[in-house]
Amino acid sequence: MIKNYPPQASENEILERSVFFISDGTAITAEVLGHAVLSQFPITITSYTLPFVTNKARAEEIKDQINTLYQQTQIRPLVFYSIISAEVKNIITQSEGFCQDIVQTLVAPLQQEIGLEPKPELHRTHGLSKKNLSQYDARIAAIDYALAHDDGISLRNLDQAQVIILGVSRCGKTPTSLYLAMQFGIQAANYPFTADDMDNIRLPAALIPYQHKLFGLTISPERLSAIREERRENSRYASLRQCRIEIAEVEALFRQNKINYLNTTNYSVEEISAKIIDGMGLKRRMF
Amino acid sequence: MIKNYPPQASENEILERSVFFISDGTAITAEVLGHAVLSQFPITITSYTLPFVTNKARAEEIKDQINTLYQQTQIRPLVFYSIISAEVKNIITQSEGFCQDIVQTLVAPLQQEIGLEPKPELHRTHGLSKKNLSQYDARIAAIDYALAHDDGISLRNLDQAQVIILGVSRCGKTPTSLYLAMQFGIQAANYPFTADDMDNIRLPAALIPYQHKLFGLTISPERLSAIREERRENSRYASLRQCRIEIAEVEALFRQNKINYLNTTNYSVEEISAKIIDGMGLKRRMF
Repeated sequence: MIKNYPPQASENEILERSVFFISDGTAITAEVLGHAVLSQFPITITSYTLPFVTNKARAEEIKDQINTLYQQTQIRPLVFYSIISAEVKNIITQSEGFCQDIVQTLVAPLQQEIGLEPKPELHRTHGLSKKNLSQYDARIAAIDYALAHDDGISLRNLDQAQVIILGVSRCGKTPTSLYLAMQFGIQAANYPFTADDMDNIRLPAALIPYQHKLFGLTISPERLSAIREERRENSRYASLRQCRIEIAEVEALFRQNKINYLNTTNYSVEEISAKIIDGMGLKRRMF
Repeated sequence: MIKNYPPQASENEILERSVFFISDGTAITAEVLGHAVLSQFPITITSYTLPFVTNKARAEEIKDQINTLYQQTQIRPLVFYSIISAEVKNIITQSEGFCQDIVQTLVAPLQQEIGLEPKPELHRTHGLSKKNLSQYDARIAAIDYALAHDDGISLRNLDQAQVIILGVSRCGKTPTSLYLAMQFGIQAANYPFTADDMDNIRLPAALIPYQHKLFGLTISPERLSAIREERRENSRYASLRQCRIEIAEVEALFRQNKINYLNTTNYSVEEISAKIIDGMGLKRRMF
């Protein structure tokens, strides 16, 4: 290693680091966790994601890639990995990278607490097995359900919905319904209020029996107008005035009908979904 | 702590443990990583996911919940947490649970390597900020694109597709397209081959200019038939014979046209998506 390592950023300069996310599976967990860890540091990263690294030859190629980068830059690449095979893993950890095993780091302390040997081969984070196949099929069924009940297309089979999301066009109903299905296997329908509803806004008769399943989304008129502009530039639909009217009407409806609702302006689909699950007391299933 | 701790499972008995996933955000990362860690142990878990724990009062409630469970069972609940506020975090770690900080465990070793202090407040894993808003909007646009180009609905704007997924009905095209959009912001179209195509199967003229973007999915006839049975019981569509014919024809088409393809029988949408990205050399974006 060179002297005065690690390199220090001079003023107004942001450090750059190369990062490898390496896994014998999809590498999705390595990416998500690695980003969570790295985002705590004021650095910019250039990242390389290498999934399905299951044999020694591939691991050797990656080791060479890491070492070449180190030789060129004299800065150790950061490596977040999750690999079960000891042989494959050892090749990666013998590279010049700064290597962290994202799963094993947490497994080791648990071993003593649980009092059992870990068996890494049991696991494939995002894999299919006989054990989880019926759960997986339920998740795919939830995606089908969300698509069949998107945007009020069908108001049938609402007894099968775990939540029915309400709101104006482009406030986040569809991505949220799909995320609830994809991540949590939750069956979500959604229903839009349109400009035509505004003169005499009320809950459709088909939704009234399911009042306990309703959850409203709202959004700031400014953000809604910006989103709608992307879709239909300079339209009445996208105008701030129209957005203000629709949101005021729909929020009033939510309040009158005592429907729990959330302002999505500053939230991602992950956050909106987690808040709906929390607000409705739904069970989060894991896949 | 009681003597002979941890409790040992007798033969043929599987240990049960309670697990808490606690976060000041969505708790999705805590759940995914916690499950990856726990699945290495031959135990069954009862899990409690507690997102948006941002104040001391809520943390005290959860601490009480953990302690009550410990007092009832004399087994320490396992706790995977990610909380920025030191005050809130301290309440959780003072519980009787066996607590592991999923992000900080990896941050500490990095601090020395990077040579900078971590600033946890920079980060919200699944959050929206001015910094990532345009990226977020691109991801929502990718979901819109997938929906507009699902199942061959539209063959327009295929120049904007990063990948066009081909395959028979129910082989995984739609969930994969949506996952590519949701997780990676990748614009994916998909096109189905139906029973009617089988007599004279060929690539639609609209797809020929985009041959370099095509990616095929296939599946075992047995699994396909089981999936189709769920949709249309005892139909010709779901019959093993029909599934065999369609798959044989479509696989032959993939080979004739030198289209890269993947058998999805044993893969989840996460795995299929990661393999498509890998196979097509697409850039994985992170959100």
